[in-house]
Amino acid sequence: MKHRIVIVGAGFAGLTVVKVLKGCDCDITLIDQRNHHLFQPLLYQVATTLLATSDIAWPIRALLRERKDVTTLLGTVDGVDRDVCEVILCDGNRVPYDTLVIATGARHAYFGKDHWEVDAPGLKTLEDATTIRRRLLLAFERAEVTEDKTEREAQLTFAVIGAGPTGVELVGIIAELAHRVLPGEFRRIDTRRAKVLLVEAGPRILPAFGDRLSAYATHALARRGVEVKTGVPVTECSSDGIVLGGEFIPARTVIWAAGVQASRAKDWLGAKADRAGRVVVNADLTLPGDPSIFVLGDTAHVEDGGQLVPGVAPAAKQQGNHAARTIRARLKGRKPPGSFRYRNMGNLATIGRNAAVIEYGRFQMKGWLAWWVWGIAHIYFLIGARSRLFVSLSWLWIFLSGQNSARLITQKETLKDLNVSGERAAKDAEGPRV
Amino acid sequence: MKHRIVIVGAGFAGLTVVKVLKGCDCDITLIDQRNHHLFQPLLYQVATTLLATSDIAWPIRALLRERKDVTTLLGTVDGVDRDVCEVILCDGNRVPYDTLVIATGARHAYFGKDHWEVDAPGLKTLEDATTIRRRLLLAFERAEVTEDKTEREAQLTFAVIGAGPTGVELVGIIAELAHRVLPGEFRRIDTRRAKVLLVEAGPRILPAFGDRLSAYATHALARRGVEVKTGVPVTECSSDGIVLGGEFIPARTVIWAAGVQASRAKDWLGAKADRAGRVVVNADLTLPGDPSIFVLGDTAHVEDGGQLVPGVAPAAKQQGNHAARTIRARLKGRKPPGSFRYRNMGNLATIGRNAAVIEYGRFQMKGWLAWWVWGIAHIYFLIGARSRLFVSLSWLWIFLSGQNSARLITQKETLKDLNVSGERAAKDAEGPRV
Repeated sequence: MKHRIVIVGAGFAGLTVVKVLKGCDCDITLIDQRNHHLFQPLLYQVATTLLATSDIAWPIRALLRERKDVTTLLGTVDGVDRDVCEVILCDGNRVPYDTLVIATGARHAYFGKDHWEVDAPGLKTLEDATTIRRRLLLAFERAEVTEDKTEREAQLTFAVIGAGPTGVELVGIIAELAHRVLPGEFRRIDTRRAKVLLVEAGPRILPAFGDRLSAYATHALARRGVEVKTGVPVTECSSDGIVLGGEFIPARTVIWAAGVQASRAKDWLGAKADRAGRVVVNADLTLPGDPSIFVLGDTAHVEDGGQLVPGVAPAAKQQGNHAARTIRARLKGRKPPGSFRYRNMGNLATIGRNAAVIEYGRFQMKGWLAWWVWGIAHIYFLIGARSRLFVSLSWLWIFLSGQNSARLITQKETLKDLNVSGERAAKDAEGPRV
Repeated sequence: MKHRIVIVGAGFAGLTVVKVLKGCDCDITLIDQRNHHLFQPLLYQVATTLLATSDIAWPIRALLRERKDVTTLLGTVDGVDRDVCEVILCDGNRVPYDTLVIATGARHAYFGKDHWEVDAPGLKTLEDATTIRRRLLLAFERAEVTEDKTEREAQLTFAVIGAGPTGVELVGIIAELAHRVLPGEFRRIDTRRAKVLLVEAGPRILPAFGDRLSAYATHALARRGVEVKTGVPVTECSSDGIVLGGEFIPARTVIWAAGVQASRAKDWLGAKADRAGRVVVNADLTLPGDPSIFVLGDTAHVEDGGQLVPGVAPAAKQQGNHAARTIRARLKGRKPPGSFRYRNMGNLATIGRNAAVIEYGRFQMKGWLAWWVWGIAHIYFLIGARSRLFVSLSWLWIFLSGQNSARLITQKETLKDLNVSGERAAKDAEGPRV
C-alpha cells in the first residue's frame, strides 16, 4: 500500500505541500471545509467593491484536476485520533493517515469579547467580505434616507479597528469610495463628509514596517481623509458604535482587523499552544513527540532565530515547501532538510490610489512606484492566467474610469431569516430606516 | 413645484421610464428594494457557474449618476395611499407622487405549494442564483463522499421543473457541467453518470416556440444527456426528490422554473388582477379609473390584439417607453400616444455549447449560428462597456478552456444560522454527509 498523506486545509501552506509532493508516488488526501482556495491578500478588495468573489477564489478540484494522486474532500475536521492515526470528520467519517499535515489557518480573534463579532465583523472568508461590502454600502443608503442628523452622521462614520496591512488597506479604499467614487450619486447627503477612522491600540500604524514608512502611511491616509487614532484601545463595541479611551464614537459600520486566533488544531492534537492558539512545533515543523504530524502556516508557532515567523502568505508557502521536502526525503530514505529557515520576502501594503509601502530588508519604497510594484506582484501571485487577466483588467478599468465594479448589496433575504445575530441582521435586512 | 414622478422598481420597465423621461423637468424618485439593476436573462449563468454576480448587476445609483433630476431610494414598498397620492414604505416613510409608475416584477409561483420553495428554489435574484450554484456543486461533493450507492445516485440526479427558456437553459449547462467540466476532478464518482431531468407538465418543451424548434431543442438536449419528461405534472416535492405522475424520483437538487406570480402591486392598489396576480390595466397601461398610475412589465396584465403580452425583457422595455412618452405628452399638453402596441422581438433560448433556437415571426434559426447570434445579442443588451467586455471575455475563456470561472460554494456559515428553512439549511451547511 502506498504511503498515505492527509493534508487538512487548502490555503497557501496546504496547497504548496500538495504541489511539492508531485510525483512522489503517495496517496494524498486534501481536506478543506471550502470548495475553493482563497487568495486572502486581496480579500479586502472584495469587501470594498473592487473585485468580484470569483476573481480571487478557485475551486480546489480544478487546481488539482491533473493530479490523479490527490483526492480532494469537502469536509470539516472535528479531531484527530492519534492512537490509530485517523482524522475524524464532523460527519463521523474517518480518514487514515501515515503522515498528517495540518494547515487550517486562523480566524479573527476578539480577545475574549467574541460577542463583538456581530457588530465588528472580521475578514477571512468570502462571506466575511460580502458581509462587510453590504454593510458599507447600506450605511450610505441609510444616511441618504434618514432625516435625523445624528443618525446620518453615525451612518457615515466607518471605524476599522487594527492598523496592520489589512486595516490600512481597508480604510484607504473606504475613504476613496466616499471621496471619489460615490459623490454625485446621492441627492441628500454629501458622501465626502463621511468620517473614516483607523483605530490602533499600539503606538503607530503598520507596526511591522519601519518608522519612516509608518509615518508616510499615516500622512498618506490623512491626505485621503482618514482619521488615524493610535495608542487608544477599543473598550466597547456595539451596533451603535465603539468606545475609544472612554469616549463613545457613534459608528454604524465597524470592521475588525485587530487580531487573529489560530484554528482549533491544538485541541485536535492535544498539543501545547501559544496565547493565540498556535501549536508550538519543532524546528522541522513537526509536532513535538510525533514526527508523523506537521503543523504549518497560521496554525503553527514557528520560530526562526528566536523570532516568531509571521502569519503571512510567503511564510505559509515556505513552510509548505519545507514540510513537503521533509516528507519526500523520508520516503526516499534520504536525509531530511532539518530546521525550517524563514526567508523574509518583505512587507507590502497599499494605502490607496498611487500610494503603497514596501519594505525588503533595509530597502524601502513608497508612493506611486511602490503602488505599481505592489499591483504587479499581486497579479503575479494569483493562480492561473484567467485571474491574472481579469484582475488586471478590473484594476485598469477602475483606474481609468474611477468606477468600482462590484458595488452589490446581496444576501438581503437570507439575513431576514438569520437567527443568531438577530437584531443586527434585522437591521441589515430591513434596508434603510429612519 | 415640479411634477413628481415616483417609479417603483428598477428593472427593465422602471429603468426605461427613467431614461425616456430625461430632460422632462420633473422631480423623479426611483424606489427599489435592491441597490442594483439585474440583467435577469443571464441570471441562469450565475446559477450555473459561468458568470460572476457583478457581471450582470449594476448599482442603480451609478447608472443614474448624471441624472440630477432622479433621486434613488433603497426601500421596500408596503402600499399605496391613493387618497393622498403617497407611496408607503416598510419603514413608515411616505413618498408623495403626482404620477406613479409601478414595475415591481414577479417572483416564482408554486401554484399553492409555497412550501416547495425550500427544496425547489426558483431563479429571480442574485441570492437565488448563488443558492442554486451552491446546491449544484454540493451535490457532486456529497456524491463523492458517500459510500451509499442509492444516496450517490440521488445526489447525482438534478431535476429542473418547467421547460420554458430558463428551464431549458439551466439543464443545458448543468449537463455540460457534469459531462464536460467536472469529469477528471473527482476520484470516486464519474460525474458523467449524473442524471439531468427536465420536467414539463405541458405537452412539449419551449412552448413559446414553434413545433420544429421545440423538437430540435428536445433532440439537442437528449444528445447532451438530458432526459426530457413532458406531459407529466410534479405532484410532490421534498428534500428527497420529486413525485412525477405517481412515480417517486430521488433527486437531491431540484430547481423550479415553472411559473411566476406578479408582485403584490394589486394589493397596494386594490386593483383587479388575473390569476397570476398581474394588475389588469387599460390599453395605455394606466390603472382603470386612475390615469395617474401606470403598471408595467411582469406586474401588469397587458393585452394587444386580444393576446397577453409576455413577461419578457423587450416587452417590459417597450412598456416603459410607452408610459414615459405618455407622461411627457401629458406634461407638455400634447396628445398622448394612446394604446400600447407590443412589437414581438422574437424568442431566443440557448440549449448549450453551439446550440440555440431563435424565432422571429416566421423566421427560424437553430444550431451554432443561432448560438452565436444569441451571444452577440445578449452582449449588446448588457449595460456599459465594462460588462460587455468582461462577459465577452468570460465566455470566450470558457469556450476556449472548457473551464467555468465561478465555481464557488458560498454562504456556508450563514446557512448554519438560518432559521426558517432549518432542516434544508442544516444539510447545506454541514457539507458532505454520508
